[in-house]
Amino acid sequence: MRYLSLTLSTCLLTALAVPAYADDLVKMSENPADWVMPAHTYDNQRYSTLKQINASNVGKLQVAWTFSTGVLRGHEGAPLVVGNTMYVHTPFPNIVYALDLDHDAKILWKYEPKQDPNVIPVMCCDTVNRGVSYGDGKIFLHQADTTLVALDAKTGKVVWSVKNGDPSKGQTGTSAPHVIKDKVLVGISGGEFGVQCHVTAYDIKDGKMVWRAFSEGPDDQIKVDPEKTTALGKPVGANSSLKTWQGDQWKIGGGCTWGWMAYDPQLNLFYYGSGNPSTWNPKQRPGDNKWSMTIWARNPDTGMAKWVYQMTPHDEWDYDGVNEMILTDQQIGGKERKLLTHFDRNGLGYTLDRENGELLVAQKYDPKVNWTTGVDMDKNSPNYGRPAVVSQYSTDQNGEDHNNKGICPAALGSKDEQPAAYSPETQLFYVPTNHVCMDYEPFKVSYTAGQPYVGATLSMYPPPGDSNMGNFIAWDGKTGKIVWSDPEQFSAWGGALATAGGIVFYGTLEGYLKAVDAKTGKELYKFKTPSGIIGNVMTYEHGGKQYVAVLSGVGGWAGIGLAAGLTDPTAGLGAVGGYAALSNYTALGGQLTVFTLPQ
Amino acid sequence: MRYLSLTLSTCLLTALAVPAYADDLVKMSENPADWVMPAHTYDNQRYSTLKQINASNVGKLQVAWTFSTGVLRGHEGAPLVVGNTMYVHTPFPNIVYALDLDHDAKILWKYEPKQDPNVIPVMCCDTVNRGVSYGDGKIFLHQADTTLVALDAKTGKVVWSVKNGDPSKGQTGTSAPHVIKDKVLVGISGGEFGVQCHVTAYDIKDGKMVWRAFSEGPDDQIKVDPEKTTALGKPVGANSSLKTWQGDQWKIGGGCTWGWMAYDPQLNLFYYGSGNPSTWNPKQRPGDNKWSMTIWARNPDTGMAKWVYQMTPHDEWDYDGVNEMILTDQQIGGKERKLLTHFDRNGLGYTLDRENGELLVAQKYDPKVNWTTGVDMDKNSPNYGRPAVVSQYSTDQNGEDHNNKGICPAALGSKDEQPAAYSPETQLFYVPTNHVCMDYEPFKVSYTAGQPYVGATLSMYPPPGDSNMGNFIAWDGKTGKIVWSDPEQFSAWGGALATAGGIVFYGTLEGYLKAVDAKTGKELYKFKTPSGIIGNVMTYEHGGKQYVAVLSGVGGWAGIGLAAGLTDPTAGLGAVGGYAALSNYTALGGQLTVFTLPQ
Repeated sequence: MRYLSLTLSTCLLTALAVPAYADDLVKMSENPADWVMPAHTYDNQRYSTLKQINASNVGKLQVAWTFSTGVLRGHEGAPLVVGNTMYVHTPFPNIVYALDLDHDAKILWKYEPKQDPNVIPVMCCDTVNRGVSYGDGKIFLHQADTTLVALDAKTGKVVWSVKNGDPSKGQTGTSAPHVIKDKVLVGISGGEFGVQCHVTAYDIKDGKMVWRAFSEGPDDQIKVDPEKTTALGKPVGANSSLKTWQGDQWKIGGGCTWGWMAYDPQLNLFYYGSGNPSTWNPKQRPGDNKWSMTIWARNPDTGMAKWVYQMTPHDEWDYDGVNEMILTDQQIGGKERKLLTHFDRNGLGYTLDRENGELLVAQKYDPKVNWTTGVDMDKNSPNYGRPAVVSQYSTDQNGEDHNNKGICPAALGSKDEQPAAYSPETQLFYVPTNHVCMDYEPFKVSYTAGQPYVGATLSMYPPPGDSNMGNFIAWDGKTGKIVWSDPEQFSAWGGALATAGGIVFYGTLEGYLKAVDAKTGKELYKFKTPSGIIGNVMTYEHGGKQYVAVLSGVGGWAGIGLAAGLTDPTAGLGAVGGYAALSNYTALGGQLTVFTLPQ
Repeated sequence: MRYLSLTLSTCLLTALAVPAYADDLVKMSENPADWVMPAHTYDNQRYSTLKQINASNVGKLQVAWTFSTGVLRGHEGAPLVVGNTMYVHTPFPNIVYALDLDHDAKILWKYEPKQDPNVIPVMCCDTVNRGVSYGDGKIFLHQADTTLVALDAKTGKVVWSVKNGDPSKGQTGTSAPHVIKDKVLVGISGGEFGVQCHVTAYDIKDGKMVWRAFSEGPDDQIKVDPEKTTALGKPVGANSSLKTWQGDQWKIGGGCTWGWMAYDPQLNLFYYGSGNPSTWNPKQRPGDNKWSMTIWARNPDTGMAKWVYQMTPHDEWDYDGVNEMILTDQQIGGKERKLLTHFDRNGLGYTLDRENGELLVAQKYDPKVNWTTGVDMDKNSPNYGRPAVVSQYSTDQNGEDHNNKGICPAALGSKDEQPAAYSPETQLFYVPTNHVCMDYEPFKVSYTAGQPYVGATLSMYPPPGDSNMGNFIAWDGKTGKIVWSDPEQFSAWGGALATAGGIVFYGTLEGYLKAVDAKTGKELYKFKTPSGIIGNVMTYEHGGKQYVAVLSGVGGWAGIGLAAGLTDPTAGLGAVGGYAALSNYTALGGQLTVFTLPQ
């Protein structure tokens, strides 16, 4: 019945969406044979109705074919499948391959941009790229150097390209573009370089900029209406961002926007998170630093914000709020709600009403989270919606040059960009998590354009008494409770996939693709791919057969030691940490592994 | 009965070998569970008695696990398996991994030498390395910079290391070392840089040089006894090499030694081929240029040559004679003979008596070979053993700056280093071949130490009327006849494996691992690995299961376009040629793929 109701409501959404452009992406995304956008569907559920591969036969899964990308370092994201063509992207230099699924994955075309390699040192956390998007017969790629390029999907020829930022100022491109209606939306990276980050919409036809919305600054720059834009049900008022920054620090305020966007065609709102305020030294930037660390609901036509919710006011730990928003329709308190669920780096799993931004649930999804005692849920409290900070772990209260020991989670969060999945059948979220704590010492830093503006050193390690640095968990978003939890030796840094086969897939940093039972978490299959997995599992159907595919290629933040050749756990301001041991399990390499059932 | 007699004769060989050092490699190589030397056994047969995987079930083969090496460019050679440890090597920077087969291929140790990257431009044909060898509890690696290093097989710590050459003079290391008794034997590369090449024996215990034998030069340097060393049954006489060179050209004479060595413990002789004379411009170096292009039989204790046979006197086409010698015991003319079979770059398949160097068979193993009408087999002829050169294709007779069109095979030969296999059951050789012709234009070049000393440009393409650039063939070495031939779109540049399961494996440049029926050549299985295969297939047994493994990683000469980023077929003095189309099928990447049967 639940499944039926979901199907009906999806049909309803489709009926309401009347696009004025070539491809109806809502409709295309409903075809389970394809994978036309980064998360399969606009709701970011990463759920497929395909069930040829299911809990009873996934143990027999085989590798069908493989493809090396020719690029080392971290491979985030997932390929797309549109009809008989698969599109595979790489980290810098950001090659895109079109593979012919009808002819043994022959390379139909290859696009390799020429980029200034000087962009590499400006990329905080490996040379990653989170993938391409499809729309209007084009493939959209956001290059490291912030060039947004539209490629003809059939030929790979450049249709248009536009510069979204300036790497000489620390602005880089790592995120997947998102096609919404007649626009291509793209964020920007550079939170560790003092970038005033933004989301920008470009015209899908010619690449002309339509609007740009910053994360902090004057109301017109952040596209907030003091009266109509709400925070927790109330209008934000004038200068809601400006008044939370000292002087013009907002101009180098971070709040970056490199996560996965979601879109609700019925509400005509898209959702994303803004990242950490710059610098990581909280003493240097008093105030709530709005709207960093914020969940945004914006109108894709105009960019105007309908509502905002700041999760971590005045961040003191780099709990970058960019993680994806997952849209579901579930009952809470006997009432069907349009929900938004978000697993923040700060270790809290949030469920909100996505129509109005009402906060419904905020609970720790890792029991070791200790920087907060929890979020004030009392609507009448002056601190409503605000997390209570534990003084011992307040890097602001303890001041500069103080080494704050044992903060959980670490700066890379209880979850980073690795996206969770949701199954409407189990009504559970499947969340790849980090189980890592840190010591954090803020220090004074001065801003120079294009230079790192970090202002803290850290060291990372598993929570005391635990040997696992990650867990793959099932989460009930209605109640904010962990249903089951599978420990992982390292962080689970690959994105999850849930399917109607009653199974959930994810990848591990050692390189395993794993399939677990959606109800129990029981491991049903694992296979060691060539390199550590930080990519997202996807599935498609071709020639009547279901396939599961994942990019290997260790790197990203968790794999930066391997990716950048750093073997000392204290390297990179401590970013390598406990992940140094990864070199005992895997080596660099970018490969796609495609699985299917035996004949 | 044949199989039984082989087994008996192998046992006899073992009984006669009385080693005075830690590991009895002859005995170890008889254990089909292991793969302790590059070709499995000293006879270079690349044959395994394992038959769990056989013609009736190979179609069900699956990928068991995979491992990325973290290195791009061409991956030649194969891993070793000694007990529960697998040793995997890479091209430059020549990393060696020890993988724990008992624990999901966990990395036990990793050795990564520090080498001057200036060695890369001195490597003629990609940054390849053909693998490591085992002996006396050590793993031996011949680095690109010619350092021969002995690593403790348990820990990866350097036990000793020695410099085998000087990259600043164009000398590089690409070949696998070979352990014979108490010595490590290693050749050297640099035929395109005017190196006077040699084979050198180092003491397995401490790396002290024991002897060095050059390919050309005075008798003492080439370790030839004018009276005792024979060529086609007759003593070579004094100054057999010197008198075939103009002046002291032998000092920059090439004759490199980077192929796979074979060893007969009973005869106590080892066998290898010497390469092309330098330069490629034959007009510049009149004479037979002995002993380039020669099959050598030497005593491993002293280095002294027992016999020699020069296949291509005064090379005019870069038909580098380094390809492996395969030792078999077969009947010819009703008489059991100790044979040596060799598939030369010049397109001729030779069978000789390995005891005395008598020439028994010399036939074209690609019918398109046109530079010669064949070898004079008349023992009473003054040209006995000499190939008759067709004037039209004689780049010497036609002179400098003349573009000689349509010579078959091309410079990379009807076969290059990719080793063939032999099955004692079928008494057939399985040969991965190139089916490529060329235009060749020699030009005057002057020698400067460490600079390319090539002196010819070429362009390469499939034989007129053919679309395939390769064939995988079965060859009867007793009669010199092709038994069956499977066409390949590109060269078959991966080494073959024959097994007692009645099957033969090989890899293709597009990346397929293929299994064919040993008797008929019928394709029984294929799988697309991540990258093009130029590695050699090997097999081992672990935990009662048979595994088949192969390194992917397109590159080498055939893949130099992809490896070095050359897209123009005329690049690299024409070395890229028809292989430019490879970029439509595969991309760079170094990965090991390990196959087994389903549970």
